[in-house]
Amino acid sequence: MSHIAITDLLKGRVEVGATVTIKGWIRTRRDSKAGISFLAVHDGSCFDPIQAVVPNSLNNYEEVTKLTAGCSVTVVGTLVESQGQGQSFEIQAETVEVMGWVENPDTYPMAAKRHSIEYLREHAHLRPRTNIIGAVTRVRNCLSQAIHRFYHERGYVWISTPIITASDCEGAGEMFRVSTLDMQNLPRTDKGDVDYSEDFFGKEAFLTVSGQLNGETYCSAMSKIYTFGPTFRAENSNTSRHLAEFWMVEPEVAFADLNDIAALAEDMLKYVFKAVLEERRDDMEFFAQRVEKTAISRLEDFVEKDFAQVDYTDAVEILKGCGKKFEFPVEWGVDLQSEHERYLAEEHFNAPVVIKNYPKDIKAFYMRQNEDGKTVAAMDVVAPGIGEIIGGSQREERLDVLDARLEEMGLDKEDYSWYRDLRKYGTVPHSGFGLGFERLVAYVTGMGNVRDVIAFPRTKGSATY
Amino acid sequence: MSHIAITDLLKGRVEVGATVTIKGWIRTRRDSKAGISFLAVHDGSCFDPIQAVVPNSLNNYEEVTKLTAGCSVTVVGTLVESQGQGQSFEIQAETVEVMGWVENPDTYPMAAKRHSIEYLREHAHLRPRTNIIGAVTRVRNCLSQAIHRFYHERGYVWISTPIITASDCEGAGEMFRVSTLDMQNLPRTDKGDVDYSEDFFGKEAFLTVSGQLNGETYCSAMSKIYTFGPTFRAENSNTSRHLAEFWMVEPEVAFADLNDIAALAEDMLKYVFKAVLEERRDDMEFFAQRVEKTAISRLEDFVEKDFAQVDYTDAVEILKGCGKKFEFPVEWGVDLQSEHERYLAEEHFNAPVVIKNYPKDIKAFYMRQNEDGKTVAAMDVVAPGIGEIIGGSQREERLDVLDARLEEMGLDKEDYSWYRDLRKYGTVPHSGFGLGFERLVAYVTGMGNVRDVIAFPRTKGSATY
Repeated sequence: MSHIAITDLLKGRVEVGATVTIKGWIRTRRDSKAGISFLAVHDGSCFDPIQAVVPNSLNNYEEVTKLTAGCSVTVVGTLVESQGQGQSFEIQAETVEVMGWVENPDTYPMAAKRHSIEYLREHAHLRPRTNIIGAVTRVRNCLSQAIHRFYHERGYVWISTPIITASDCEGAGEMFRVSTLDMQNLPRTDKGDVDYSEDFFGKEAFLTVSGQLNGETYCSAMSKIYTFGPTFRAENSNTSRHLAEFWMVEPEVAFADLNDIAALAEDMLKYVFKAVLEERRDDMEFFAQRVEKTAISRLEDFVEKDFAQVDYTDAVEILKGCGKKFEFPVEWGVDLQSEHERYLAEEHFNAPVVIKNYPKDIKAFYMRQNEDGKTVAAMDVVAPGIGEIIGGSQREERLDVLDARLEEMGLDKEDYSWYRDLRKYGTVPHSGFGLGFERLVAYVTGMGNVRDVIAFPRTKGSATY
Repeated sequence: MSHIAITDLLKGRVEVGATVTIKGWIRTRRDSKAGISFLAVHDGSCFDPIQAVVPNSLNNYEEVTKLTAGCSVTVVGTLVESQGQGQSFEIQAETVEVMGWVENPDTYPMAAKRHSIEYLREHAHLRPRTNIIGAVTRVRNCLSQAIHRFYHERGYVWISTPIITASDCEGAGEMFRVSTLDMQNLPRTDKGDVDYSEDFFGKEAFLTVSGQLNGETYCSAMSKIYTFGPTFRAENSNTSRHLAEFWMVEPEVAFADLNDIAALAEDMLKYVFKAVLEERRDDMEFFAQRVEKTAISRLEDFVEKDFAQVDYTDAVEILKGCGKKFEFPVEWGVDLQSEHERYLAEEHFNAPVVIKNYPKDIKAFYMRQNEDGKTVAAMDVVAPGIGEIIGGSQREERLDVLDARLEEMGLDKEDYSWYRDLRKYGTVPHSGFGLGFERLVAYVTGMGNVRDVIAFPRTKGSATY
């Protein structure tokens, strides 16, 4: 593989005057009256294509003038400084070899014109060839790499918590069943129920909705762990924020309290946003021009500002006293709605806000009870322009308190025996949070719908490819 | 969080004489006749625990003498150079605070004694607290981070290919079904079949067995991509090499032929092995002492030696002429068995071997046909001590050849329409391979069973936690 990535040429990593070989796909072709063709060639390595200037003296110049968007080519030529505007370097082509044609350009689904984002979604196998989805793909990769790097540099251990789970710890209502039973001839028990003892795992099994509980087991040995893997919800939510299959980042930290993980969330978000601003400036400029004009400035703001911190109880007072009319009225004890969160972040604090210490009755059993007996050490990170982006808590590490809470909520202690073991044997204070990765990518890019920031989105009624 | 990771102390990153706070779990306690207790405290950050020397002048010394394996403690004290053997630094404790007791040490499942590896597997939520599984966890993390770093440094883009797939491209025989249908009241069509149009995705859906075909779509736009995610096989294989849920790494490279990806496989394996040798020396020394005495030396060998390269056809001749009696006889046209692969790697070449250009009849439809009409551009990487570790191929990029092959194999072109589109529109030569991540970790650590290198293994009859 002796060819060079286009990003290396455009970034000036190759000396002017060198003979270079590039391989990629035609974005556009333009022919001058003087008998020169200009090919814009992209290879996915950066936002911009490189221009290849092709003189009509080439043997196959006739062929070159037939190139259309999507054709694949190998261009060999001399790297020169560009005379035109916009780009610093271009290639004076010496040979152009066509690897693959687009046989009928009129029917090429990605022909060089504006396509609606919905149209692109229906052609998910070809849409990475477009400017917009190419840019999303690079930014998504940049965020993912930055997340791994952030945790690795700080001594966190990546744990792959299980995808398939037969644990009874999760509410099965919104879970996908995983089975190898013959659906035409389901085995039955004497009572006529489906006999899951005959299924692959010997009992009912589902796709995980979170790696947290499993993550806590490793946190109780390795101290600092994180998961980064797919999670699933069988929700019939046809919104721009929901996917049936999405990736979650879930750090879990021993010896950390609520304030520690609020600080971790702030550090992490700032770290990954800085990485995008530094490494993917080209793609972010495109998003700022075409998708969301504050795409860059809001990340810069985010990185510079300290997060605000507010107790849920105080937040409720602020919302009640602000004079703004909300669709959902606010009272102590109700969960905050998106309109409330956005008011706090966008109008009151004008900064990302960590809302802390929620009423225990609206939160999960594993969150640590505060001294007041009414609240738990839970937090949400809410950001201007997106709303909730992270949810987390300190975990209940006291066995007696956990057991009382399980009982209060009508949950069976037996189902949580391994989770309770962590509290029986050398329990430690610990905390963690969850970040929906697609929501993060949607926020950074300004893309309005999470379906456009994952390669092949899975939603109700749709799992093609 | 003002405490310090034990690895930072043992690696000399903190000045001797400093007052330090550590938090972790007791591995062992030893009391001297002189009224001093020695606590070995681990926190998962490295293989070795640190020794805290506790004088009987502490107020709660009585409590300290009751500490047992698994109790969690905070120790504050002065970092001093160790007088004893083995370790360079220890802590002269000033306070010891017990965070969590092990109430009945006799029933603590991870009490400080030798446990069988099968016993540990049955206590998967506690086993990371042991030396051996802690070491596996750190090495697994090191390998995972090195894989991401390797590809990122070379301009590859990580793609999360879908976990749930309704694509008809895969053989459904060994796949897990994903469904939200009510199993007690399955909807039926007029003909009495299960009516999957009522299911969540509107048709039958399964867990993916490979991200390759999806990966090819992004490779045909971004040039260099890789996947690193979970894949699934509903195989009833009760072996030390099979899991129902395992992680795969699958790079896919545009403009690359078989030799290019053979070189990529070699570079990648050497890169990640070097990372383990450099970053996890402590854990590797444990594996060399207790699990597989060549654990370190075979990685060092691997990194230094050039891979051998041999055509399948020549490999068959070598095997037929070597005078060794194999359980499975070798003839041109049969697939190589583990015994054959190991003979080639361990005895004939005494090095990792890339076996190339297999008979097309034993390989998948998407592999590129060679000029001879009999073989395809497939490769396996086979290593001493493990056998096959990587399988890959150049992909068939010629639409007419691909179509002929689909027909020959009785596959329906319609089911592959999006895959065929990649060949219709700007097709390019491209190649890729798959690496089973758990087999890699098992090889590196010398652990005999893949169930012991993933946090919560899923196998036939087992999906607890």
